[in-house]
Amino acid sequence: MKRAAVMTIGDEILSGRVLDTNGAAIASRLRSLGFEVTYHLTCADSVEEIVRSLRFCAERADAVVTTGGLGPTEDDVTHEAVASFAGVGLELHGAILDQIRVRFESRGLHMPASNERSAKLPAGGEVIANDHGTAPGCALAVGDLLVVSLPGVPRELLPMLEEGVVPLLRARFELGGVTRIRVLKTFGLTESRLGMIVERLPRPTGTLHVGYRPTFPEIHLALTAAGRDDDDVARVLDEFEATLRTALPTQIWGGEGDSFASVIGAALAARQWRLATAESCTGGLVAKLVTDAAGSSGWFERGYTTYSNESKVALLGVPADVLAPDGPGAVSERCAAAMADGARRAAGVDVAISTTGVAGPSGGSLAKPVGTVWVGLATPTETTARAYRFPGERGWVRTLAAYAALERLRRLLLGLAEHEPFAAREDRR
Amino acid sequence: MKRAAVMTIGDEILSGRVLDTNGAAIASRLRSLGFEVTYHLTCADSVEEIVRSLRFCAERADAVVTTGGLGPTEDDVTHEAVASFAGVGLELHGAILDQIRVRFESRGLHMPASNERSAKLPAGGEVIANDHGTAPGCALAVGDLLVVSLPGVPRELLPMLEEGVVPLLRARFELGGVTRIRVLKTFGLTESRLGMIVERLPRPTGTLHVGYRPTFPEIHLALTAAGRDDDDVARVLDEFEATLRTALPTQIWGGEGDSFASVIGAALAARQWRLATAESCTGGLVAKLVTDAAGSSGWFERGYTTYSNESKVALLGVPADVLAPDGPGAVSERCAAAMADGARRAAGVDVAISTTGVAGPSGGSLAKPVGTVWVGLATPTETTARAYRFPGERGWVRTLAAYAALERLRRLLLGLAEHEPFAAREDRR
Repeated sequence: MKRAAVMTIGDEILSGRVLDTNGAAIASRLRSLGFEVTYHLTCADSVEEIVRSLRFCAERADAVVTTGGLGPTEDDVTHEAVASFAGVGLELHGAILDQIRVRFESRGLHMPASNERSAKLPAGGEVIANDHGTAPGCALAVGDLLVVSLPGVPRELLPMLEEGVVPLLRARFELGGVTRIRVLKTFGLTESRLGMIVERLPRPTGTLHVGYRPTFPEIHLALTAAGRDDDDVARVLDEFEATLRTALPTQIWGGEGDSFASVIGAALAARQWRLATAESCTGGLVAKLVTDAAGSSGWFERGYTTYSNESKVALLGVPADVLAPDGPGAVSERCAAAMADGARRAAGVDVAISTTGVAGPSGGSLAKPVGTVWVGLATPTETTARAYRFPGERGWVRTLAAYAALERLRRLLLGLAEHEPFAAREDRR
Repeated sequence: MKRAAVMTIGDEILSGRVLDTNGAAIASRLRSLGFEVTYHLTCADSVEEIVRSLRFCAERADAVVTTGGLGPTEDDVTHEAVASFAGVGLELHGAILDQIRVRFESRGLHMPASNERSAKLPAGGEVIANDHGTAPGCALAVGDLLVVSLPGVPRELLPMLEEGVVPLLRARFELGGVTRIRVLKTFGLTESRLGMIVERLPRPTGTLHVGYRPTFPEIHLALTAAGRDDDDVARVLDEFEATLRTALPTQIWGGEGDSFASVIGAALAARQWRLATAESCTGGLVAKLVTDAAGSSGWFERGYTTYSNESKVALLGVPADVLAPDGPGAVSERCAAAMADGARRAAGVDVAISTTGVAGPSGGSLAKPVGTVWVGLATPTETTARAYRFPGERGWVRTLAAYAALERLRRLLLGLAEHEPFAAREDRR
């Protein structure tokens, strides 16, 4: 079995200020290719430390993949360190520099001279193109070892890994067979509960790895299968996907390329329904999530962010007695229902969702503690509201409230039962 | 400055299946104590690999803190490896074993024999109590080096770090001197341009490190200073902050604890102004950013997400001729201005901002390519709109458009000149 090590380079990661997600992504992909991952080492933006770390990893690896330290500032020294480790010089790639210059000029900017740094690669290295940023990567053979250097920005790194590095590793290490990843996206279960369910399911024969990718509040399952050929791999993936869908009939809502809102949008479009939103505690987040989906103008009409009580009355027709000092107040079943119903009527649409709650940190009371949220849903036939109690700080409460509103709508559109008021995932690792 | 390394032990982390959050938490705490963190190394549950990793870290550290591998299963070998590294044996702590047994029995369970493993610590080690789980930690002096072993479960590790390890490190290393980090948040310059400006500035005498933390579209500068005492460190930080503020008079908008919206909120509150938003292409994102700030109800009245043309007319009074087939259309100066003005009037507030543009991926034309955005600003005295051309995909365009709208407002409130239509930062981390 070939062995690989991952190196993350950067003071901001080392000091714990920024959480490193690249290391896990690279390790996971290397493993799916059939590598044993031996180390993941994070070190400082220092030539000496990078060289020392490369030497340490090299004794237990056929390939070392580094991330970070390829940018234009003076603390970006990865290429310099790799060259020093290999005992070669740096060479300026004119073509790369031209590309970087064009990227700047296409935005009407003059390229700062410091960007030359990104175009100086270890001599003899193979360029790994970066279609999403300025700094390309590099693959350099050092004796039997292959050192691959990638940038630290995940948006750049991940496509480069897939499109540039994987084919290169396959070719160099004669990795036969194929590996495919299939993503299934879930919502509504904690990671530990999801893990308990998934780990007890029967696995198909064949090589299959299940990864968990929490992107709060969603958890994505990444099924990685390896086999002789595409048919072989597709069989394993199809079989386990069917098992998963049976075990998680309502929690799995989409796959790669889907967003929670785009799936809902497709269901709205299928009914030729248009949507409006009425938000208090989520303050625009529901509309933002909805309009993140390209083409959402096809099914999204408008959104009301009625933050003040006055706006709830003026725009949505919430009865003044609901908001009066002796009424149930803005955080109540009646208010949430009136908001959804009012938005549906005022916007002249088929369906509307609403949120109103206490996002915190202040504003909580014994009867309505921080995290209390009402979610309204108005359809052509009925208007209802449900109460939730979300854990966590303001950002968590708002995100969970927005998802709860979208989830009510999704379940309505797909004919699923209402979901249980869920709790946030507890942490586990 | 004392140096420390962090080691994460566990196959599940190494393979990328589980994201390691402990490493960053430990590093961050060590750094705040005044340690320079030299490495974060993840290795397998293997005595040989742990020993090799300890040797590697030991050459650059006065303390090594490990996490993971203290549990009851046979792949939990950290204590064994630390003992081997130190050249000592393992000794069974009867008191620990009794505590573990009591924990099991209090839940009506019989303790599996495998838990003996957790009670066998390197001889001469100091026990670090674990109040939230079964496996205690251990601190062992190996010559001048201190090796601290903690469990991998964050819920157990974090209190042990704070209550058990921090006092121990303070005592052993007589941690004098202080290290402080000051954050200054910027917007409007690319990272390379910001870096060029900052790197040319004169530095105060003393120990000062400048880090860049891009959190798109903001870039935060983290100034880390170390010195004898608080006064010493404050002098270095104050001096360089003043230098930075002179060099970046409009780009620095806040510090730790500030958000772009909270700074704007404070300026609105100072004038006793209330804000409304009118959004098309940003689809609720401006309102979402505004209401991310706790207490925003004090200065934010309401938001209109007028995605359809009908809603622009009905809610904001955009003249129908603007949106007519032969008019300038929704993405135009007139529409942006009418939206801002209409929102200001309809909401009965002092100031309103608006966005309307082509976020993509479709909808672009030769005259109005994807990325074209108009931002309106209506005040008690005038209403204006400005055009921008943002690079990147839908999410980028929307985020940059939302920030441009907030930036117009911020500059108005602070009496700064309008900003140059900026380009996105190029990426790196």
